[in-house]
Amino acid sequence: MFCMIFASDNWAGAHPAIADSLMAQSHGYVPAYGTSELDRKVEKRFSEVFEREVAVFFVGTGTAANSLALATANRPGGVVFCHREAHVNVDECGAPEFFSHGARLDPVDGALGKMDAARLEAEIRRFPPHFVHGGQPMAVTVTQATESGTVYSLDEIEAIAAIARAHKLPLHMDGARFANALVGLGVAPAEMTWKRGVDLLSFGGTKNGCWCAEAVVLFDLSKAQEMQFLRKRAAQLFSKSRFIAAQFDAYFAGDLWLDLARHANAMANRLADGIAASASSRLAWTPEANEVFAIMKREVATRLQQEGAIFYDWHVPQHLAGSVGEDEGLYRLVTSFATRIEDVDRLLAAC
Amino acid sequence: MFCMIFASDNWAGAHPAIADSLMAQSHGYVPAYGTSELDRKVEKRFSEVFEREVAVFFVGTGTAANSLALATANRPGGVVFCHREAHVNVDECGAPEFFSHGARLDPVDGALGKMDAARLEAEIRRFPPHFVHGGQPMAVTVTQATESGTVYSLDEIEAIAAIARAHKLPLHMDGARFANALVGLGVAPAEMTWKRGVDLLSFGGTKNGCWCAEAVVLFDLSKAQEMQFLRKRAAQLFSKSRFIAAQFDAYFAGDLWLDLARHANAMANRLADGIAASASSRLAWTPEANEVFAIMKREVATRLQQEGAIFYDWHVPQHLAGSVGEDEGLYRLVTSFATRIEDVDRLLAAC
Amino acid sequence: MFCMIFASDNWAGAHPAIADSLMAQSHGYVPAYGTSELDRKVEKRFSEVFEREVAVFFVGTGTAANSLALATANRPGGVVFCHREAHVNVDECGAPEFFSHGARLDPVDGALGKMDAARLEAEIRRFPPHFVHGGQPMAVTVTQATESGTVYSLDEIEAIAAIARAHKLPLHMDGARFANALVGLGVAPAEMTWKRGVDLLSFGGTKNGCWCAEAVVLFDLSKAQEMQFLRKRAAQLFSKSRFIAAQFDAYFAGDLWLDLARHANAMANRLADGIAASASSRLAWTPEANEVFAIMKREVATRLQQEGAIFYDWHVPQHLAGSVGEDEGLYRLVTSFATRIEDVDRLLAAC
Amino acid sequence: MFCMIFASDNWAGAHPAIADSLMAQSHGYVPAYGTSELDRKVEKRFSEVFEREVAVFFVGTGTAANSLALATANRPGGVVFCHREAHVNVDECGAPEFFSHGARLDPVDGALGKMDAARLEAEIRRFPPHFVHGGQPMAVTVTQATESGTVYSLDEIEAIAAIARAHKLPLHMDGARFANALVGLGVAPAEMTWKRGVDLLSFGGTKNGCWCAEAVVLFDLSKAQEMQFLRKRAAQLFSKSRFIAAQFDAYFAGDLWLDLARHANAMANRLADGIAASASSRLAWTPEANEVFAIMKREVATRLQQEGAIFYDWHVPQHLAGSVGEDEGLYRLVTSFATRIEDVDRLLAAC
Repeated sequence: MFCMIFASDNWAGAHPAIADSLMAQSHGYVPAYGTSELDRKVEKRFSEVFEREVAVFFVGTGTAANSLALATANRPGGVVFCHREAHVNVDECGAPEFFSHGARLDPVDGALGKMDAARLEAEIRRFPPHFVHGGQPMAVTVTQATESGTVYSLDEIEAIAAIARAHKLPLHMDGARFANALVGLGVAPAEMTWKRGVDLLSFGGTKNGCWCAEAVVLFDLSKAQEMQFLRKRAAQLFSKSRFIAAQFDAYFAGDLWLDLARHANAMANRLADGIAASASSRLAWTPEANEVFAIMKREVATRLQQEGAIFYDWHVPQHLAGSVGEDEGLYRLVTSFATRIEDVDRLLAAC
Repeated sequence: MFCMIFASDNWAGAHPAIADSLMAQSHGYVPAYGTSELDRKVEKRFSEVFEREVAVFFVGTGTAANSLALATANRPGGVVFCHREAHVNVDECGAPEFFSHGARLDPVDGALGKMDAARLEAEIRRFPPHFVHGGQPMAVTVTQATESGTVYSLDEIEAIAAIARAHKLPLHMDGARFANALVGLGVAPAEMTWKRGVDLLSFGGTKNGCWCAEAVVLFDLSKAQEMQFLRKRAAQLFSKSRFIAAQFDAYFAGDLWLDLARHANAMANRLADGIAASASSRLAWTPEANEVFAIMKREVATRLQQEGAIFYDWHVPQHLAGSVGEDEGLYRLVTSFATRIEDVDRLLAAC
Repeated sequence: MFCMIFASDNWAGAHPAIADSLMAQSHGYVPAYGTSELDRKVEKRFSEVFEREVAVFFVGTGTAANSLALATANRPGGVVFCHREAHVNVDECGAPEFFSHGARLDPVDGALGKMDAARLEAEIRRFPPHFVHGGQPMAVTVTQATESGTVYSLDEIEAIAAIARAHKLPLHMDGARFANALVGLGVAPAEMTWKRGVDLLSFGGTKNGCWCAEAVVLFDLSKAQEMQFLRKRAAQLFSKSRFIAAQFDAYFAGDLWLDLARHANAMANRLADGIAASASSRLAWTPEANEVFAIMKREVATRLQQEGAIFYDWHVPQHLAGSVGEDEGLYRLVTSFATRIEDVDRLLAAC
Repeated sequence: MFCMIFASDNWAGAHPAIADSLMAQSHGYVPAYGTSELDRKVEKRFSEVFEREVAVFFVGTGTAANSLALATANRPGGVVFCHREAHVNVDECGAPEFFSHGARLDPVDGALGKMDAARLEAEIRRFPPHFVHGGQPMAVTVTQATESGTVYSLDEIEAIAAIARAHKLPLHMDGARFANALVGLGVAPAEMTWKRGVDLLSFGGTKNGCWCAEAVVLFDLSKAQEMQFLRKRAAQLFSKSRFIAAQFDAYFAGDLWLDLARHANAMANRLADGIAASASSRLAWTPEANEVFAIMKREVATRLQQEGAIFYDWHVPQHLAGSVGEDEGLYRLVTSFATRIEDVDRLLAAC
C-alpha cells in the first residue's frame, strides 16, 4: 500500500531498532530518575559523539529542551534573540517565556529561515547594558535545521556565535532536526556546535525515529548543577529514565541516527527533484534537510490531498510574496526515516 | 535468580503487554500532538472507566500531572493544603509552586499519611477570605494511596471533600498509586473520585507497569480548554502522543491495571505477614496498598542489604518516635507488578 | 530664571496643592493598607468621576498599574496585543510578561502611535482558539494619550473595543497621560473609557502633578477580589496608603487634574505653533496632548541643548523615514503642569 | 486630646521634618528614575551610614524590599529559611514566592520570634546538595527587630550567619524596624549587618516616620547590576524617585532616624513598665524594640478598646500556651515616633 504522508516527521512511529532496544529494557530493575548504568552509558556516548565532555539531560519534548536550555541563561527583563519563524517563537505556546519567568523572544528576520547576522547585531544593540527600561539581552538561539528546511553553514553559525560572544550572550541551538542538518552539511557534531561557539544544544531524536527522546546538551559544564534542579522543577525528570536512554542507545549504535537522517534527506531530495521537474509545481527554495517547500497550483494541491496525500499549507514569507500566483499556494512536505521511495514516487506521479 | 529489590515501584520496567502494545504502534503514520484515533479511543476509555465524561490529558511524569492539575486552580497568593508527607510537598522540587507561579503548599498533619479533617478545617480557617496579607486558599490535595502505603476510606475522602467544598476549593487527588488504592478498597474508580467529591485527578500508570504513562483527569470539563494550553506551555504535550496512549490502551485492556495492582498489593501483604511473624522485625503499621513500612534492627537491615536486598531507610514520623528503639530503624519496602513470590520469600527467609 | 526642560513630564515635582494635601495628612493616625476613610473617600470620588461604580486600586508606578491590570486577564500561553511603540512593549523591562507569568506582547503597527484596527483584527486571527501551539489571545491594550503624543478619537477606541469584544478579549487602556488625552478630546472620563468598551484602566496622576499616584480602575467589578490579592502579591499595597489617597484627593478637587492637563497641552500647542512657524525646524506631526515631536537640524538641536534645553532624540518611525534629512533628527519635547510660558518662549526664541 | 492608638507603627503619618523635606522637593525639575543628584547624595549617605560602599535601591514597600532582596539568590527549587512568624512567611501574600518564581519558605521555629540556630542547621541539612527531589537551599532570612518585638544580639546574628556561610547561602535581614533594633542594641549599623555576615538588607523607613521609604541595601556589590533589572521588572522603579530620596535625606539628617526610634522604644518601655506594674495585666515577654506583648484579661482589653484604645489581639504562641488563662488574651501594642507620653499614660491609667 502506498502512503503519501508528508505532514510531519513526527507522524511516523519509531524505528524497529529503537523499539527493540526499548523492549529489551522492559525486564529487570534499575535505579530510577536517571541514575541507572544505562543512563550513564548513554550520557558517556554523548560525550564521545561530541568529542568532549558534555552534560546531558534527557527530557520529554523538544519544547522542554529549548525552554530549559534557555532557562540556564535567565535574567530579569531578559530578551532572547531568535529567528521570526523559530519554533520557540511560533510553536511553543509561550513555554520559553514561562520557563524564563517572562523573558521576551525578540524576532530577527533573515532569508530562508536563517537569522541575518547584521540584523541580529542591530537588534542586540537596541538594548544598551545599563538601560533598564527595555530589558537586557539574555541569549541567542538558532534552529538547525531551520523551520524552512535549510541549514546554517559552519561559517554562518560562527558569524552568529561571534556576535553572541561579543555581547557575552550564550548561543543556543535548537536541534530538533540536528541529525538532518548534520548529514546535510556532512560534518561532525563537534564542528556544528561547540567548535563554532554553540553553548547549549537541544538534541532531538523524536523526529528522527525515536518515540520520545530529547536531550539538553550543555557544553558549559558549570551549568549542569543548576540544570538538575531546573529539569526536576519543570517536571521533566522521568522516573523510568531508561525508557529514554534505551532509545538513544539504539539511536547512536552503528550510527543509526545518521543513516536515518541521510535517508530522510535523500527522500526530500528525490521529492524536490521531482517537483522541480514537474509542470504543475516548483520549489520555493532548495531543501537542505528533510523538508521541501513547494509552490503549487491550489487545485493541484487539493487534488493530491483528495487522493490521500497529507501535507500542510504554509504561510507565504514576505520575500516570496511576489512570486506566488493568485491561484497558487506554498506547501510544506516533510520526509522522515520512514518515508519510502515508492511513497515519494507515488506523490510525484500524482502531481 | 532471586531479586530482592524493594526500593521503589519505579525501578521495575514495563509489563510485557504494555511493551507489546507500544511496539505494535511503532509502524505507520498517525497525527501528532494527541489527535490520533488511538488517543481518542483511550480518552474514551477513561470516560468508561470513570462512568462519566471526563477530560484526559496525557503527560510525562506524576509531578507534571500534579502540578498541572493544581495549576487549574491558580490564584495569586494561593495556598494549597496537603499532607506534610505528600509527594507534592517533599519530592517535587518546587514544581507545584513553579507551575502555580508561587502558590504555597501548606502542610497539614495527620496519622498514617492521611490528612486529618479537623486540622484541615482549622488550617483553611487561618486564611479569611478578604485578608490579603496571608494569601488565599486555592485547593486541597490528597494522595491515594498515601506515601505511607495507606488508603483513605471513601468516608475519609468524603469528609475532606466536604471541607473543600464548604470553602469552595477544588479537591485534587494524587493518584500515582491510584490502582493500588482502588483494589485495596475494592471499589469502582467513580466511587473513589468524583462520586466522593474529587474534582481533579493525577492518574498514574508508570508505577504500575507502564514505561511512562500519566494523565490529568478533569471531572470538571469547564477546565479542559485551559488545560490544553497549560499542558502545552508546560512542555508536556508530546508529539508522538500515541506512545503514551498505546500504554494506557494495554493498561486498561482486560483490566490488566487492576490485576497488576492486585498482584503488587498481594506481594506487599505477603511481605507484611512475614515481617509481622518474624522475630527480628515488625510492622510500623498495616499496609493497605503496595508499600510496607517495617521497624527492624539496624544490623538486620544492613545484613539484608549486604545480601542484595534494596530498600530505603525512612525518617521516623513523630507519632512513632517512642516506639522505635535506639538500635532500630524504619524501612520502606515497595512491591510492584514485577515482584515475584520467590523474591518476597527470599527476603523473608533472610530476615 | 528660565528653565528649558522638556525631557519628560516626570522630571517635574508635585503641584503645590497636591504637596499641601499630602502634608496635611502627616499628622494623626489612620488605619493602614488602604482601609482609611480618606482611601474610601477617594475611591468614591473615582466612581463619581467615571459616573458609575468602579473598583480602584492605588499602586506606585504606571508599570505596576499596567502589569496588574493585564494580569487580571492571565491565560497560559496568553498573547497581549499592543501598539509596537506602547510603553508596555518598550519601556517596562518585561514587567507585563513577568506579572502574567510569561504572556507575550504582540506588537501591532499603526500610524501616529495608534493601533490600526484592521491589523489588530488580522493579528488576533493568527491565533485560532483551539490551536495550542501558538498561544491564545488574552487582552488588547491601547495607550491614551499615545507615546507619540496623539490621542485616539472616541470612534477609534470604539472600533478597537469592538474587535476585542468580538474575540472576547478585555480592552485595557494605559492612561499614564489620561488627563492630557481627556482634555485633548474634551470629553468626559466615562465617554473615553467604559462607554466605549474599555474594561481596565491604568489611571496615572504622577505625570500630571502628583508625586506618586497611580491607580488600576476596574470597570468589571467581578475582578476586584482577585485584584486585591494580585496587588498585594506584587508588593504594591502600601501600608500608609493615604499618602497616595491624599494626592488624588487634591488632584480631583476643583478639577485640578483637568486644569493641569489643559495647561500642559496648551504649552505643547504653543511650542508646536512656534516650531511650525520657525525656519529651522518643523513638526513631525500635530500634537494632540502634551508631547511635541519636531524635526530639527541636528546642529540646531545640539545648540539648544548647549544653551540648557533638555529634550530627547527620538528614533525615526518608518513612515517618516523619507522625510527626515540626513542632517536632521527627530526630537521629543514634553510639557507638563509645571511648564511656563516663558520657558516655551525662551526655547522658541533660541530656535 | 488623647490618642490611644497602638495598632501599628504604620498607622502614624510622617514626621514633620520628613514631610518638609519632601515638600521642599516639589519645585524644580530633576532627572527621573533614580538618576538625580539627590538620589546620588542619599545613596552615598547610605554608604556612610554603613561605613562601606553599598548598593542601594529605593522601593515602595517592605514586601518589595524583602522579595527583591531574596530574588537575588533565586535558584530553581529554592528554599528560603525563615522564622515561622516572619513577615515574609505570614504577611506578604506569597510575594517572596512570586518574585522567586516559586521558591519555598521553610519555617524554622525559635523562642521569642528568633530563629533557633540549631534548628536552622538541622533544617538546611534536610536538603542535601545533589538530591533534586526536595529542592535546594537558597537563602536564610532573619527579621530585626523581630515580629515579637525582640532583637537578635550580635552574637545571635553571627551564629546564624556562620551557618548560612557554611552552606554558602546568603543571609538576608528584614529591617522593616531596623532603627528600632539598632538603638535597642546600641550599636552601629555596620555592626548589626555586614560585620556579622549579613549580605542583603531590607532597610525600612516607613514604620519609623517616613511616608513611603524603603530600600534594598546590597553589601555584595556584584548583585547590583542584576538588581537594577529585578527592581524595574518588579515595577518598583519610581519615576519621581526623589520623593523617596527626599524622605531618606531628612531621615538621616542629624540622626533623626535614631532619635525617632529611640523615642518609639522609650514609649514601648514606658508602656511595658506600666503593664508590668499593673494588677490587671502582665508582660508576655520583655520588649526590646517598639512592640509590647501583654497578657490581659479579655474584659480589660475590651473595656480599653471601648474607651478608644486600638491594639490587636495576637495568636498565642505555643510556648506560652500554658500561661495564658482562659479569660485572658495576648495583645500586641505598638509604639511609634508619634506616640506621646500622655497617650501611654492614659492607656496605663485606663488599665
